Amino acid sequence: MGGATTHLAGRADHAAVRRANLAVVVRALRAGARTRARLATDTQLTKATVSSLVAELAGRGLVRSGAPTRAGGVGRPGQEVELAAERVLSIGVELNVDYLCGVVLDLAGEQRAVVRTAFDVPGRIEATAEEMADLIVDLAGTALGADSAVLAGVGVAAPGLVDGAAGIVRVAPNLRWHDVPVLDLLAKRLARVPLPWLPAPGGAEPSREPVDVLIDNEATLATLAEYAGGVDPAERDLILVTGGVGVGGGLVVDGRLVRGSAGFAGEVGHIAVVPDGVLCGCGRRGCWETVCGLGALLDLAAAPDDTVRDHRRDLDERLDLLLDRARHGDARTLQAFDKVGRALGLGAAMLVNLTNPRVLVLGGYFARLGEFLRPLVEAELADRVVAPDAGGVRVALSRLGLAAAATGAAHAALAAVLDDPTLVPSTGAPPSAREALRKDTA
Amino acid sequence: MGGATTHLAGRADHAAVRRANLAVVVRALRAGARTRARLATDTQLTKATVSSLVAELAGRGLVRSGAPTRAGGVGRPGQEVELAAERVLSIGVELNVDYLCGVVLDLAGEQRAVVRTAFDVPGRIEATAEEMADLIVDLAGTALGADSAVLAGVGVAAPGLVDGAAGIVRVAPNLRWHDVPVLDLLAKRLARVPLPWLPAPGGAEPSREPVDVLIDNEATLATLAEYAGGVDPAERDLILVTGGVGVGGGLVVDGRLVRGSAGFAGEVGHIAVVPDGVLCGCGRRGCWETVCGLGALLDLAAAPDDTVRDHRRDLDERLDLLLDRARHGDARTLQAFDKVGRALGLGAAMLVNLTNPRVLVLGGYFARLGEFLRPLVEAELADRVVAPDAGGVRVALSRLGLAAAATGAAHAALAAVLDDPTLVPSTGAPPSAREALRKDTA
Repeated sequence: MGGATTHLAGRADHAAVRRANLAVVVRALRAGARTRARLATDTQLTKATVSSLVAELAGRGLVRSGAPTRAGGVGRPGQEVELAAERVLSIGVELNVDYLCGVVLDLAGEQRAVVRTAFDVPGRIEATAEEMADLIVDLAGTALGADSAVLAGVGVAAPGLVDGAAGIVRVAPNLRWHDVPVLDLLAKRLARVPLPWLPAPGGAEPSREPVDVLIDNEATLATLAEYAGGVDPAERDLILVTGGVGVGGGLVVDGRLVRGSAGFAGEVGHIAVVPDGVLCGCGRRGCWETVCGLGALLDLAAAPDDTVRDHRRDLDERLDLLLDRARHGDARTLQAFDKVGRALGLGAAMLVNLTNPRVLVLGGYFARLGEFLRPLVEAELADRVVAPDAGGVRVALSRLGLAAAATGAAHAALAAVLDDPTLVPSTGAPPSAREALRKDTA
Repeated sequence: MGGATTHLAGRADHAAVRRANLAVVVRALRAGARTRARLATDTQLTKATVSSLVAELAGRGLVRSGAPTRAGGVGRPGQEVELAAERVLSIGVELNVDYLCGVVLDLAGEQRAVVRTAFDVPGRIEATAEEMADLIVDLAGTALGADSAVLAGVGVAAPGLVDGAAGIVRVAPNLRWHDVPVLDLLAKRLARVPLPWLPAPGGAEPSREPVDVLIDNEATLATLAEYAGGVDPAERDLILVTGGVGVGGGLVVDGRLVRGSAGFAGEVGHIAVVPDGVLCGCGRRGCWETVCGLGALLDLAAAPDDTVRDHRRDLDERLDLLLDRARHGDARTLQAFDKVGRALGLGAAMLVNLTNPRVLVLGGYFARLGEFLRPLVEAELADRVVAPDAGGVRVALSRLGLAAAATGAAHAALAAVLDDPTLVPSTGAPPSAREALRKDTA
């Protein structure tokens, strides 16, 4: 017994190192195809180790041979290895007040599909779960096609307080949801559909059980999307502040998403930036979103009967109208932008003083009006942050638009495979195919 | 060349695993002596691996045999292994406006010595460096004694904006310091003294160079002290808010101290909790410390000629006077506590909404007046935090008093050895001594 345990533990150590090294190679290849020699340099592993890792990844269908290159012009050409990114896909879905958004990412984190569908969520639970399941199955059908792709997982982004461990939306006032077990409702429906899920841990064949569905807060997942896909990976400290009817936020510290001890981090919209200020929908006064949420902007920018306040019109069109007015020097619009931008900067400075991020990303409508809001935020940070040069923070605009949260949900669903590529089963490809990949290993 | 590289890389992997496992055993033993069997259970390593790791630690003088125990009453008794905590010491020094504080910790994180000495720091640079070096040498002389102890490092805690990488205090208004290269000044002085520093990396003998001196912000290091020594290690998300003339803070997320991208995280004292509020010493308006710093409390609680505002009296005595008045129901004192406590809670709620910590620690004068301030903070959190039950946060009072920052500095100086016990050289103890430890390994 002692001996057997010893052996297993010894193997466990080596297996853990091996998994970590496989993950390092996959992450390096996400940046683009490269030769084994270049991989060895990039990963600080030996060429022999890299070759062995590449052979294993090839066996799992995760890499393939790319174009030959002649490094430095000397010797025989090196064969590039490239990620077979389409082998592993993940799906992210955001449920919001009046739409569902779905995104498919591949192993490289590239978007393979995106769809947004109008759907009236508030007060409807079963119907929403049904619609989400349909959306996921449709996306899987389109994106997975007849390929050998496996589905790493599904991520769900929801507004409000989300208990990710239990899979429950605790409180989502805008949806009129309270303690809704979204993951259970979704899993029940997905279990009826044959999807090529990864094998359950320890299993040999792809499972038919949707074991890999996760849920988290929309702003938290949008933050992950900004970090995973949006910015320089060297920028390991990031804050997202995203504006809609509510104001949400998220925090990445030293490359890791901050979820909080109970998963409730990033609730910035109800920080009391104006003590005894106006009443917020949450029942408190002076919350940040009362001074820079979409409602505050529209109240300031336009009379009640102004077309930009017509909720039946698409938000993007209405924001375009406001941008057009501002660009033409309309005083009321510019004053509204000024007031909202300064209020945004006031709260942003609090976050920057506390966490000293490298990047502050403005998302949602803040990004859309970024040409006007960003300079105002930068000025407030320069005034209000204690550290010199506002602690070196750069203010960036999100480019993810309405797909940010769904994209983050799909990134979250990819993470398990990125951390442990051995979750992906062997393809059972004929030896000759792998032999070709192994050829210049010798 | 290729072969040699392979070999080195292979060894590097194994050596890294070995170092990590040695570190795991040392951390497990910090919680108390235990048998190899118990260590194996606690660390999820095999008993054979544990025995080999313990033998190596014994060779480095880091563990010794403890009392025999009879696990379950069956078989021969197991020998407990205990940390030889006195083998490795670290020194922390805080420099503050009117005192220096020094703390010696051993490898277990236990305090071996503490000293506080009145010293007028503002505007004095060379004299302060001299005084700090003397304090460190005195502490080393007392604590290291004639033992075989090695000095893991020295940590310095300083107020203001500290550039830890460069070893420079950038701006410390209360010290009237600007761009002071504290580490250089200190290292120059410590280099003249024979102290048993750890060997430089790659070296065989203890170095005479003070290679392991670090500096960081006082509140950041006080936060580390609360996390490392003060609270349940299972509580991996913590915020410290500490009150003096200024208000400082620090953040631990998922067990890691948040320093920020440029080391300026935790600057909570100048968060603008009252827009357009009273003028702060920093030139801004409505900073948090203007409504809950010591000055705000004293202004509210006492007339200008009241003895509690006499700066020549010890602060602890003056706070005792206030406590006494409050306990006797003095209305003005209670009103002051109420106002300050609510202002403290207002800002604390912002931090809790953003990061959802498990514990909010009140330090400095907030802890000393904790019996009055804590319930007020708890009430504000209950009102202002969006997550249910204030996100599950517990409000705790620091027990570290004025030694908090120096204690954190000493913890920071221990970290390198805790992460890699092989930094400690072999003792060259006679084989018989280690043989005794190895005996029940077989």
